[in-house]
Amino acid sequence: MTENVVNEALRIFVNEREWEKFHTTENLAKSISIEAAELLEVFQWEDPTVLDNVRDELADVLTYCYLLAMKIEASPEELILEKMAKTSIKYPVEKSKGVSTKYDQL
Amino acid sequence: MTENVVNEALRIFVNEREWEKFHTTENLAKSISIEAAELLEVFQWEDPTVLDNVRDELADVLTYCYLLAMKIEASPEELILEKMAKTSIKYPVEKSKGVSTKYDQL
Amino acid sequence: MTENVVNEALRIFVNEREWEKFHTTENLAKSISIEAAELLEVFQWEDPTVLDNVRDELADVLTYCYLLAMKIEASPEELILEKMAKTSIKYPVEKSKGVSTKYDQL
Amino acid sequence: MTENVVNEALRIFVNEREWEKFHTTENLAKSISIEAAELLEVFQWEDPTVLDNVRDELADVLTYCYLLAMKIEASPEELILEKMAKTSIKYPVEKSKGVSTKYDQL
Repeated sequence: MTENVVNEALRIFVNEREWEKFHTTENLAKSISIEAAELLEVFQWEDPTVLDNVRDELADVLTYCYLLAMKIEASPEELILEKMAKTSIKYPVEKSKGVSTKYDQL
Repeated sequence: MTENVVNEALRIFVNEREWEKFHTTENLAKSISIEAAELLEVFQWEDPTVLDNVRDELADVLTYCYLLAMKIEASPEELILEKMAKTSIKYPVEKSKGVSTKYDQL
Repeated sequence: MTENVVNEALRIFVNEREWEKFHTTENLAKSISIEAAELLEVFQWEDPTVLDNVRDELADVLTYCYLLAMKIEASPEELILEKMAKTSIKYPVEKSKGVSTKYDQL
Repeated sequence: MTENVVNEALRIFVNEREWEKFHTTENLAKSISIEAAELLEVFQWEDPTVLDNVRDELADVLTYCYLLAMKIEASPEELILEKMAKTSIKYPVEKSKGVSTKYDQL
């Protein structure tokens, strides 16, 4: 499967429901935050985590991320690789190995 | 490019830095929430939104989503499609067309 | 010290800077989410938590909560007590003792 | 009413339910983030905002903030005033008047 298939499926899904008007970049950013908190909620208490809930909530975050990526005409996977390149510079292997220190304190 | 390429690149990036130990499912869920809020921050005030910041922050959310997906052995794109199928049932086209009403009030 | 003193101090602080125009209820809700994530960030990795950072970030969340409460003409402390009354009904002592189960599954 | 009354009521409420064990500082920080997102959700779409929902969700955020403040032995209102003093220095009136610019770009 490719990104294009997913994007096309999302586009059809949204268009059929005429939901495009709700999907401003700002609204999508809000939705991502809201869904991220629902994902976090799965881990809120000491209960054993139900994996199915993780899948479901992660799927929601990803869906809005893909919609926002489409909106700004970016490819999710390219965004990830682009950012990884920047992060490699901020966190060189020799300095960041095994530590979670922030780059500005490395 | 395929998901596998991105996953492999992420795996190498994390392994080289020995960061795997920090990436429990719960920690990744927290990271997704934190990065989602940084994305939201781009839209906080009335300032014109800088598209580059959206790209950067969205990339961070996506990166942690991909890492969490790997952790639970799921494909991000399959998760999206799987959830879309469930959502189609909750939000049938004829009922949800043009409205943002929640499914339990449709 | 009383709520009124804090509210009055906040009002003066905001007015002097002419920031009232930025403080729509929606913008304040966004700010609360953003600051809550910064608070969460203090707990992101395994580092020993610096208590001073918790104080600082909690103060930010509280500040925007108080501003939003003023906006909707509510008293923060009355809101807490009002909600506690509702929660007591959802979570009766005998059923919820020692468990973190959600009320709809009690 | 004073902070002490609210704190005492919260303490009794939590103790009766033996929920103290769930309320680590980290868990409370997570709860604050989760409740903040529920507050944000009230503003997600274009629907007219129901004020009652704002009250309810804001109350939840405030409740966890007060619990966390108790945990770190801080007074919510003192935290707000302490932070306001710091913020006044970062954002002097003459520089920040009417603008939402971040302090590091003032």
